[in-house]
Amino acid sequence: MSNQILKNKRGIIFGALNEDSIAWKVAEKAVEEGASIILTNTPIALRAGEINKLSEKTNAKIIPADATSVEDLERLFEEAQKHLKGKIDFVLHSIGMSPNVRKKRAYYDLDYNFMNKTIDISALSFHKMLQVAYQQDAIAPNGSILALTYIAAQRTYDSYSDMANAKALLESICRSFGMIYGEKNGVRINTISQSPTKTTAGKGIDGFDLFYDFAEKMSPLGNASAEECADYCIMMFSDYTRKVTMQNLFHDGGYSSTGMTQKLLNQYQENIK
Amino acid sequence: MSNQILKNKRGIIFGALNEDSIAWKVAEKAVEEGASIILTNTPIALRAGEINKLSEKTNAKIIPADATSVEDLERLFEEAQKHLKGKIDFVLHSIGMSPNVRKKRAYYDLDYNFMNKTIDISALSFHKMLQVAYQQDAIAPNGSILALTYIAAQRTYDSYSDMANAKALLESICRSFGMIYGEKNGVRINTISQSPTKTTAGKGIDGFDLFYDFAEKMSPLGNASAEECADYCIMMFSDYTRKVTMQNLFHDGGYSSTGMTQKLLNQYQENIK
Amino acid sequence: MSNQILKNKRGIIFGALNEDSIAWKVAEKAVEEGASIILTNTPIALRAGEINKLSEKTNAKIIPADATSVEDLERLFEEAQKHLKGKIDFVLHSIGMSPNVRKKRAYYDLDYNFMNKTIDISALSFHKMLQVAYQQDAIAPNGSILALTYIAAQRTYDSYSDMANAKALLESICRSFGMIYGEKNGVRINTISQSPTKTTAGKGIDGFDLFYDFAEKMSPLGNASAEECADYCIMMFSDYTRKVTMQNLFHDGGYSSTGMTQKLLNQYQENIK
Amino acid sequence: MSNQILKNKRGIIFGALNEDSIAWKVAEKAVEEGASIILTNTPIALRAGEINKLSEKTNAKIIPADATSVEDLERLFEEAQKHLKGKIDFVLHSIGMSPNVRKKRAYYDLDYNFMNKTIDISALSFHKMLQVAYQQDAIAPNGSILALTYIAAQRTYDSYSDMANAKALLESICRSFGMIYGEKNGVRINTISQSPTKTTAGKGIDGFDLFYDFAEKMSPLGNASAEECADYCIMMFSDYTRKVTMQNLFHDGGYSSTGMTQKLLNQYQENIK
Repeated sequence: MSNQILKNKRGIIFGALNEDSIAWKVAEKAVEEGASIILTNTPIALRAGEINKLSEKTNAKIIPADATSVEDLERLFEEAQKHLKGKIDFVLHSIGMSPNVRKKRAYYDLDYNFMNKTIDISALSFHKMLQVAYQQDAIAPNGSILALTYIAAQRTYDSYSDMANAKALLESICRSFGMIYGEKNGVRINTISQSPTKTTAGKGIDGFDLFYDFAEKMSPLGNASAEECADYCIMMFSDYTRKVTMQNLFHDGGYSSTGMTQKLLNQYQENIK
Repeated sequence: MSNQILKNKRGIIFGALNEDSIAWKVAEKAVEEGASIILTNTPIALRAGEINKLSEKTNAKIIPADATSVEDLERLFEEAQKHLKGKIDFVLHSIGMSPNVRKKRAYYDLDYNFMNKTIDISALSFHKMLQVAYQQDAIAPNGSILALTYIAAQRTYDSYSDMANAKALLESICRSFGMIYGEKNGVRINTISQSPTKTTAGKGIDGFDLFYDFAEKMSPLGNASAEECADYCIMMFSDYTRKVTMQNLFHDGGYSSTGMTQKLLNQYQENIK
Repeated sequence: MSNQILKNKRGIIFGALNEDSIAWKVAEKAVEEGASIILTNTPIALRAGEINKLSEKTNAKIIPADATSVEDLERLFEEAQKHLKGKIDFVLHSIGMSPNVRKKRAYYDLDYNFMNKTIDISALSFHKMLQVAYQQDAIAPNGSILALTYIAAQRTYDSYSDMANAKALLESICRSFGMIYGEKNGVRINTISQSPTKTTAGKGIDGFDLFYDFAEKMSPLGNASAEECADYCIMMFSDYTRKVTMQNLFHDGGYSSTGMTQKLLNQYQENIK
Repeated sequence: MSNQILKNKRGIIFGALNEDSIAWKVAEKAVEEGASIILTNTPIALRAGEINKLSEKTNAKIIPADATSVEDLERLFEEAQKHLKGKIDFVLHSIGMSPNVRKKRAYYDLDYNFMNKTIDISALSFHKMLQVAYQQDAIAPNGSILALTYIAAQRTYDSYSDMANAKALLESICRSFGMIYGEKNGVRINTISQSPTKTTAGKGIDGFDLFYDFAEKMSPLGNASAEECADYCIMMFSDYTRKVTMQNLFHDGGYSSTGMTQKLLNQYQENIK
């Protein structure tokens, strides 16, 4: 698709690591739809990933920033506005990391320094970004800001550990700041709650493949892919959705509203026998 | 906006009465975005309203149908597919009426014949439409079906009476049939929960103006207009949202996630003094 | 347990069929906790079941009533108040039946006469009961009214068909009437959303055993039994819960807030291999 | 009421400051209902409040503990089990504080050191308490753990600032640990979302009186008092509620399910004229 629905819009994309990243797909599609963008990630991620390829493809400047650092974020928003020659119309926050998950700490044996990092990286970074942008008056009227989240914020999954708590916090920050930005100049803020996705981050979770299969069968439309998620983000950045704010939007093939599908029950049944 | 995001798509729009109707705006925008459509409403509404104007403007055939009549719906879907030369890609259900509300029956003094009508017209009509279309295999793969609803399905409003119950039923039908259509051929079904809107139906509710003002102040972005709702519907009909299904989507300027705004509290405060 | 927490309270219990019924357990426990009760059910159910045994055990009068008949309900509330010598403190609605489910009609092939019956028996009966009691001023100040429901009102289960829709309607009626009764004289109205339960009604649903097992594994505390549900109802009837109203209360061992347990994943995994 | 429904149970109550505290009322009622308890709070709060009076009245030992300190919590649970001669049956977490709110920092100008404190005190303290108790195997089978929360976790209130985010995190921790405790030995964990309450903490929030009045009029049963909240906590600690877990339970006179009451609209209307 390319209907130029983001024509003349300026955006910042956080969190593109490699071709599997949702943020990567969003960057590609945003540019196809007419936007000019800035790419950003932590210096470590920039080195580890393949973002230069994306930068070339999308003709996008890369500005390194640690999203937990207010100073970095201040510089980022200043430079982005200068480079793009105007206020920012859309922002994607696609950032999440839990040292407790990485180190396979059980939820009843969390390291609290790790937990503070999970929270800072995965949730407070969103507040910091929004606060910095607010204070710089960096977001254009009727702009649109999105963060990616997961249904673990509502329901408990054994392996998602303190990331679930961070996502609940992230969604709450979306609502709180959504009120403030909305009243100020019509900017909307939402979270998209995406199916389990085969990204580098997703695949790092214990038992991911098994759960991916379970969710696939539990979703009437099947799991939503990274590419489909990018399409949805594009639409939420466009002017077609200007009165949607402070919402958590499930993009999951129907998983969140499904109690049991026949295809899941069939598979489950085989095993019972 | 006109980005041709519904190019080559075929749709059926239920419930356009006059220029204030949300369905009217959806019809206009769908055609601007490249779709071919059929307009439908009950014979009475067709006579009372100004739909011929819309028909001319959108180059759309009008097919009368009482949405509570399975026979009418069967004929409608047959003729629509014939006239549009293909399966239907999108449908809008914008239908609601409560004789109890019209006759100002208190909720503790409902007439049950009226209540059955409220339910049949406002909710079961959606099931009938979906069942008829399913049995005719009338919806194209990856099609999109929407019904309009109101937050009274979740929270009680004094004046909304049995329409609140009908909307809860409508949203439930959306989820139930969403699973079936999703598994069959990727069709998605969602409801949009819209701000109070100055339509003929809306303005018929007791104390509407007062409540409209309250909701305006309780919504960080203000109430969503009929035109903005139409934009959102267009987006949900487009291919940008193919994995969203069985959801109730609030299109309300943030009202549903707001506990109290400063502007509402200010006004409330004046009165307390 | 017997702590006399319903001492001096008067109640009406709808829907006790046999020893497996939740309503049966509620009746037993209510009397153990000090209440005087009336038992009621349709004439057919009274003949089919074993309610005389319960009547003797609980020293409770049986008053036949078809809960879809306003006349029957009027007589029931009149007689109940006369017999119990005072206004009613608590009511349990445990009524549900779908001819479509019984006749195994697919959800895309419902008989609409059947669906009207499902709705009338399983949902409108609750409105009728509440409207009759309201007009007779039959409920004592600070009384408590409960209806039993199921999570199919929120999430779609293949086999639950139009009962899911009826339950959504039932829960909506609870909220609507909860406002009115609350403002009138402090009466509260809630629904309890119970685990799948091995009652005569439950076991009538296709694939019940399999789903019961799935839910058992998906619930950190396991499925809630009929007896445990009765304990929860007793608590909601008692004076310990006087400010809880218009709520849908999950009594399900945690199922509703669980995305995946280890025990479910283990079983699922075996089968994948 | 005193029906001895907590007979032979052992509990720990966090957060009783003075007679207005919900935790104070819970302590009183728990003992009236037959429980033996330990009272705990931070050393500063113990000095500032009047807990000695409560200690005498309830015959309860006071064990000082900073709930953000794992070491303090370890000592607390050890001493409590020793003093009460057995594992703990119930725990109340009634702890919350935001330096940002106290210092009247706007939400778009938060101090992040303060925010970390808000989160640590108001939310992570709950995780720490649960982790310590888990590792000591300190909670008796079928025990019950509660934390108090507020609807700001779901809807945004201008003046509640980062406490809203902390409450969302708290509720998420409840769900995550609820799964683990449930599977281990049948312990349930829930949050109670209470009406605005005239406690020392509540009254510290900007514009509290005005909002209290608004909520009173928006609640069909009126706001729930601290005493009524204590009744509800007692019931959730009792054996009547053994299969309720991972839930957020609104105890708010119906506020959460109310869109508009006539009494609120009347008052609002006066001012519009």
